[in-house]
Amino acid sequence: MSVTAASGFAAAGVVAGLKSSGKRDLAIVQNLGPLQAAAAVFTTNRCKANPVLWSEQVIGDGIVSAIVLNSGGANCYTGARGFQTTHETAEAVAERLEVSGGDVLVCSTGLIGEQLDLDLLKAGVWDATLAITTDSGVSEAAGLAAAEAIMTTDTRAKQARMSSPEGWTVGGMAKGAGMLAPGLATMLVVITTDAVLNSEQLDTALRAATRVTFDRLDSDGCMSTNDTVALLGSGASGVEPAAEAFADALTSVCRDLAEQLQADAEGASHDIAIEVVNAASEDDAVEVGRAVSRSNLFKAAIFGNDPNWGRVLAAVGTTSAEFDPYGIDVAINGVQVCSAGEPDQPRDLVDLAPRAVHVLIDLHAGPATATILTNDLTHDYVHENSAYAS
Amino acid sequence: MSVTAASGFAAAGVVAGLKSSGKRDLAIVQNLGPLQAAAAVFTTNRCKANPVLWSEQVIGDGIVSAIVLNSGGANCYTGARGFQTTHETAEAVAERLEVSGGDVLVCSTGLIGEQLDLDLLKAGVWDATLAITTDSGVSEAAGLAAAEAIMTTDTRAKQARMSSPEGWTVGGMAKGAGMLAPGLATMLVVITTDAVLNSEQLDTALRAATRVTFDRLDSDGCMSTNDTVALLGSGASGVEPAAEAFADALTSVCRDLAEQLQADAEGASHDIAIEVVNAASEDDAVEVGRAVSRSNLFKAAIFGNDPNWGRVLAAVGTTSAEFDPYGIDVAINGVQVCSAGEPDQPRDLVDLAPRAVHVLIDLHAGPATATILTNDLTHDYVHENSAYAS
Repeated sequence: MSVTAASGFAAAGVVAGLKSSGKRDLAIVQNLGPLQAAAAVFTTNRCKANPVLWSEQVIGDGIVSAIVLNSGGANCYTGARGFQTTHETAEAVAERLEVSGGDVLVCSTGLIGEQLDLDLLKAGVWDATLAITTDSGVSEAAGLAAAEAIMTTDTRAKQARMSSPEGWTVGGMAKGAGMLAPGLATMLVVITTDAVLNSEQLDTALRAATRVTFDRLDSDGCMSTNDTVALLGSGASGVEPAAEAFADALTSVCRDLAEQLQADAEGASHDIAIEVVNAASEDDAVEVGRAVSRSNLFKAAIFGNDPNWGRVLAAVGTTSAEFDPYGIDVAINGVQVCSAGEPDQPRDLVDLAPRAVHVLIDLHAGPATATILTNDLTHDYVHENSAYAS
Repeated sequence: MSVTAASGFAAAGVVAGLKSSGKRDLAIVQNLGPLQAAAAVFTTNRCKANPVLWSEQVIGDGIVSAIVLNSGGANCYTGARGFQTTHETAEAVAERLEVSGGDVLVCSTGLIGEQLDLDLLKAGVWDATLAITTDSGVSEAAGLAAAEAIMTTDTRAKQARMSSPEGWTVGGMAKGAGMLAPGLATMLVVITTDAVLNSEQLDTALRAATRVTFDRLDSDGCMSTNDTVALLGSGASGVEPAAEAFADALTSVCRDLAEQLQADAEGASHDIAIEVVNAASEDDAVEVGRAVSRSNLFKAAIFGNDPNWGRVLAAVGTTSAEFDPYGIDVAINGVQVCSAGEPDQPRDLVDLAPRAVHVLIDLHAGPATATILTNDLTHDYVHENSAYAS
């Protein structure tokens, strides 16, 4: 169960023919109401894809009736014709679902710089809306089909849900495998809830949740042009949630999906959590964790099961965070390899055979902490990303 | 010919036993005068190795009598004992060459977090100073031996020279293969000249030359803890050069060495020049070129001979440079693949079989330009850097 876990939502995932593999490549999620409240956050990349430019307008009034997502093409750097393709896709959905085109979000993912086939998109929209308007659109299977339709190099569909004893639910789906970097990681995420909340409340909760989840996932340092996280509220549960309880549930669903993205990152053989503690500020902790997560040398060492902690410190030293360079401790998987700038326990004691790797960096500079999630740099990453367009 | 090309310098490279391979691993370059003017620039990494901390003190008065360099260990994050090792190495050189220990620069390269063997270092210093004080110390062979002794994963020694019709010479040697990133690339460089210049003049010329050469080489985005570029002036030619002529010659030697570093970068199969033109400022041009040079996705695509220009724009979009996201042109190896944010020539026309790759990014925002040199991201890079410590 994902986007259809909350009541008041229907979904579909169909084969439009945009992917050469012949797999599902177009999804629609419809908000059946009674509310049509929504919030969304988008990539901070200045080179934004056409669907992002479109959706930033749509979200302006906080009302979203449906969202249509395609894999098989990013529709980015495709000029006026590309924007027209996004617009007409939204209008096609609107006509079939009898809503306003201005209330339809559009998301695309795939190769940059290639036009999408509008005829294929329209036929896919027809099929998806046909499926969605039948009873099957609110089923678990429909949610799964939608989650499958947004996959690119993902090896599995990503879904999460969390239900409150108060009687409301948050559910979500995500895609993302390469180009996973902060603000946001490269990904499309749709989260639905039947809690009774207006668009301002959704927006506040969404920004708070993404800040500590998706924005702290940095698989390969590359920021996408198409990232979108949308949160749709139907109000169908009739229950107004406690603000904190909803924030917790939303953050939990976002974290679950972020960890699924990390676990399925292209070619990765280790999931690395870089925990920075005793930083002067949360920004410092994030900056330090981010710098380590972007060190190709560190990431290649982890791939080779080599606890090369000097590469951690070399990355820390490139930041402007507050610390004494010779007052830093580093532990890897529980072994204190560096204390106050000197070798401590032998590096041979570190076991990097497990997929999960924990790097603990103690800056001894203050009370703040943050954890950045990343992956190792592997032969498979290089292979997958050198063959992407071919 | 490298550091011994200019008159007034002697050099040696010997086997001290620091490298398990049994290859040369300790070099000394001595300034025989009459001047002992010097300048140096160091890594901007805040986590600096002990030899950098030492050498920053030595260079303070602009007088350097000799420089001792070792491979086989970075002597970084080795605590008070590591600093003592650096200090005693300098004193050992000073005693043998009858100069002051406070006028001996020290450079080290290799693994971080391991102590160097001081006895091996001292024996190596003995051998090197013995060689250097014979006639052979000023020979071409001596310069080559020194250049070989500083190699780590370098596959070849890197030397350059430039002689002026005015009668003075600039020569240099460099090492660097991984951890090549700006401010500076990871490397040790020693440049010598017999032109008559004081330390202030050398400093000005060195900073100007490194800014547009070594600082624009960004092979893998990782900044080292040990980078040092030293320029020693003997004045032995007796000729005071025209400032501009010397600046040109020095920049030329630095560029030659930087290009040799790029050509020998770990595991690389393409040398990529990212030229940013019509930027609002030189800083903007450098920021944009640097962002592209750090995109693993772009670099993996080039490895796969895939002219995936969308990944260029996705990287450009992460910068704060002035530009209209839909007013950018991109050409790869002479093929205009993107014009004003739309696909132009078919990407299939781009031939990426040659090792040299030229990416031209036109920001249409002003008069400034800069070129960043980088490499592709390959299986061999991952392999070499996952096996480094083993």
